[in-house]
Amino acid sequence: VLVTLGLFLASPVNAAGDAKAGRQKALMCQGCHGLDGLSKQPDAPHIAGQPVLYFVKAINEYKAKSRRHEQMSIVAESLSEADIADLAAYYGAITVSVELPAR
Amino acid sequence: VLVTLGLFLASPVNAAGDAKAGRQKALMCQGCHGLDGLSKQPDAPHIAGQPVLYFVKAINEYKAKSRRHEQMSIVAESLSEADIADLAAYYGAITVSVELPAR
Repeated sequence: VLVTLGLFLASPVNAAGDAKAGRQKALMCQGCHGLDGLSKQPDAPHIAGQPVLYFVKAINEYKAKSRRHEQMSIVAESLSEADIADLAAYYGAITVSVELPAR
Repeated sequence: VLVTLGLFLASPVNAAGDAKAGRQKALMCQGCHGLDGLSKQPDAPHIAGQPVLYFVKAINEYKAKSRRHEQMSIVAESLSEADIADLAAYYGAITVSVELPAR
């Protein structure tokens, strides 16, 4: 079973963010989440194709310290609203496909 | 650019969970996250292929109320350690591929 998504989910809210600018800003994310949005660390989530609304909410929760992670708290603190929108647009524009395990 | 992952990242920790049992338990998750692990709601993340360590940590944060979401707090409260391991194994066994946006 293959399902494709990403651009589709992200596009309605993307207007606020600039995916090209986001790609540049994503250089600081790549050690843990990759430029491809796929986790490079066992405690880091994949963030490829995440809905923009979820992505922005997650960063803002780290910023407000209602969600905590040593490294993400520091990163989130450094991000402006525009940075967050651009990163959300970039990662949200990655198309994600999945293949289910055999049953 | 196509990258494939999922089983690879998940397998070292999977021993604890039963992916087939997890698939059954995932029926309660599908309204928001799909049986395919792809978000069905703008404020719900994709959870397909998430590293098992991250997945288990996230659910336990909801359980401990150090991470908050109205619906997830209720769901997490209802899950045993075995349920969480099985769900982590199932969603972690989904293979994720990504395609980057044109630059």
